[in-house]
Amino acid sequence: MGIYLDHAATTPPDPRVLEAMLRHLREVRGNPSSIHSGGVAARNAIEEAREEVARLLGAEPQEIIFTGGGTEADNLAVFGLARAAGEKRHIVAAPIEHPAVRNAVKHLEAGGYEVTWLEVDAYGVVDPEAFRRALRPDTAFATVMWANNEVGSVQPVAELAEICRECGVPFHTDAVQAVGHLPVSVEEAPVFTLAFSGHKLYGPPGVGVLYVREGVELAPVSFGGGQERGLRNGTENVAGICGLGVACRIARAELEERMRHERELRDRIISGLTRIPGVSLNGHPERRLPNNVHVSVDGVEAEGLVLVLDAQGFAVGKGSACSSGEHKASPVLLAMGLGEREAFSAVRISVGRENTVEEVDRFVEAFSGAVAGLRELSPLRTGG
Amino acid sequence: MGIYLDHAATTPPDPRVLEAMLRHLREVRGNPSSIHSGGVAARNAIEEAREEVARLLGAEPQEIIFTGGGTEADNLAVFGLARAAGEKRHIVAAPIEHPAVRNAVKHLEAGGYEVTWLEVDAYGVVDPEAFRRALRPDTAFATVMWANNEVGSVQPVAELAEICRECGVPFHTDAVQAVGHLPVSVEEAPVFTLAFSGHKLYGPPGVGVLYVREGVELAPVSFGGGQERGLRNGTENVAGICGLGVACRIARAELEERMRHERELRDRIISGLTRIPGVSLNGHPERRLPNNVHVSVDGVEAEGLVLVLDAQGFAVGKGSACSSGEHKASPVLLAMGLGEREAFSAVRISVGRENTVEEVDRFVEAFSGAVAGLRELSPLRTGG
Repeated sequence: MGIYLDHAATTPPDPRVLEAMLRHLREVRGNPSSIHSGGVAARNAIEEAREEVARLLGAEPQEIIFTGGGTEADNLAVFGLARAAGEKRHIVAAPIEHPAVRNAVKHLEAGGYEVTWLEVDAYGVVDPEAFRRALRPDTAFATVMWANNEVGSVQPVAELAEICRECGVPFHTDAVQAVGHLPVSVEEAPVFTLAFSGHKLYGPPGVGVLYVREGVELAPVSFGGGQERGLRNGTENVAGICGLGVACRIARAELEERMRHERELRDRIISGLTRIPGVSLNGHPERRLPNNVHVSVDGVEAEGLVLVLDAQGFAVGKGSACSSGEHKASPVLLAMGLGEREAFSAVRISVGRENTVEEVDRFVEAFSGAVAGLRELSPLRTGG
Repeated sequence: MGIYLDHAATTPPDPRVLEAMLRHLREVRGNPSSIHSGGVAARNAIEEAREEVARLLGAEPQEIIFTGGGTEADNLAVFGLARAAGEKRHIVAAPIEHPAVRNAVKHLEAGGYEVTWLEVDAYGVVDPEAFRRALRPDTAFATVMWANNEVGSVQPVAELAEICRECGVPFHTDAVQAVGHLPVSVEEAPVFTLAFSGHKLYGPPGVGVLYVREGVELAPVSFGGGQERGLRNGTENVAGICGLGVACRIARAELEERMRHERELRDRIISGLTRIPGVSLNGHPERRLPNNVHVSVDGVEAEGLVLVLDAQGFAVGKGSACSSGEHKASPVLLAMGLGEREAFSAVRISVGRENTVEEVDRFVEAFSGAVAGLRELSPLRTGG
């Protein structure tokens, strides 16, 4: 296995997470809705996991809804808040949202909702005063992500949520990139709803969370057996949920050390890469995810660079993993004022717990060589 | 661990399924949307699993959509077909549907759709001629499950689907209880869409499938990164999907033997239990799931019986696992003409691969003793 530097796309599950999942898959016999002791054991395991998740966020267990992933959690918040808002049909959203939020909001927009798409600065950050001005009496909800999945910029979410609280507007945040990588507290940030995903914090794939503050009304968007207070119907993925509980417990215990380590590696990569002529950092220089490096490489197409690095054993991302397949420039980068050319030359390097200083030094060297090689070949070459 | 006879609620994953899941969780590094080799490996693993699933159903791989579970697949079919039908706002549905379908259809009914709820006979089976008469030019879709999750009756789905095909009406079937337990072929039954779930056929929890026949139009009901042709957005649960692929491969190879074994145990339990005075079989005597026994026990409350059996090491179900928590008589049993009293005295015993003749004989004995004991105690006692 090569050197994995694409943790923002997905993280390898922690061995302790796998152990918990396996234990449940092998030993627990029962649907959590069953009343026999196997069912009760499954139910109890879910409730223990709910407590671990709540603890990580500073929430109450009953405020945690388990979903089938981050996108589902975001969709539930967007549609659940919109439908609960009745006649209010105005939405405030950032253009730099993850597609799970952005495309859900666009779907509402196509259906007649009016959306105020906020401007962002050159770092992709929302201005709180502009945000405040966008709120209206008929605003159904506002949504700004905790930290951007592409460029890594951290938004002033606590401040935005506080503004919403003052104005009585429900506020949702997609915290998929943040939870387990930054301190995320619903006590400090008075959000109404907050989404995150297991597989971004060394937890299992296929399981996510929507935090729903006590008293917040969400209209259901799925229908079935009534699981998760009727907000996420279907037999619970007990093993996945237990794995996520363990991932949250680990994150809480190791967050400080994880951040310190990630920041060290991140800053080493940033300083190494930005010494290469024509390489510029995107996103906020300080207020960014501890594990995120996002650079545009003048005269180089990102796809080629990713593949050359891959051939040398380094896994990095181009654009956002979730919108690959489309051949369009990232709306996030365009909203920040980058041109198409800079957007298509952007790569994302995201470090993780298991990476070492030695690995990232080798990476910087390989990157430098790959860029030089591609520039030699490229018809797009503009010097630099 | 005791003797597990609640396979209709959830099945223990096959060790080969766990092995496949673990291999992916431990070894594959990459989001399937990433273009580096770890991402490509994840993508390829999904496509291999898609082929296995398609093979089990007699479908084409591109007709398989992976979801986060059976309920999600059913919801996607119901809302996806309804929204794709435009002005057509009539639905034909059976009252014995699983809550994942029934409650989704009821939500549409509350929103202005007209629903023809079909009658069922005393076995819970839909009459094809009545079904045909219910179809109208403005019917958006019709839905009848393959086999009932409570009483185990198998519906004439091939015939119903054929009627729909003739009339040009989209037909959905919830085959969650059937796939892996009965031959289910979309070649023989011309359904438009078909849902099933991993954890009911010795596969992983938290992953399901919606089969969507080539050319069938479904409106998307989730929004995000465009995964699964935009019909199920969110990073794919690669490990779960691979596990499901293995479960489908095993089901295809072992179906005949599995059915033979399950039928033998089922019939042994039926003949043992129905010898107890006041115990009557619910559901169709022949056209029923090979693993399902569903009986009403005169003068005994199901909950008490389940708990007494549990204390003796036997796990069985009361009503449907998916609607536990509600304290209402099962709509399925009421639709079949049972009274509240018979409904609340109903238990479901569902056998599985790992059960033995010796186990079910011990179970019949324990059941008989438990019933006698509860009747001694019960104020509801009516003799028999």
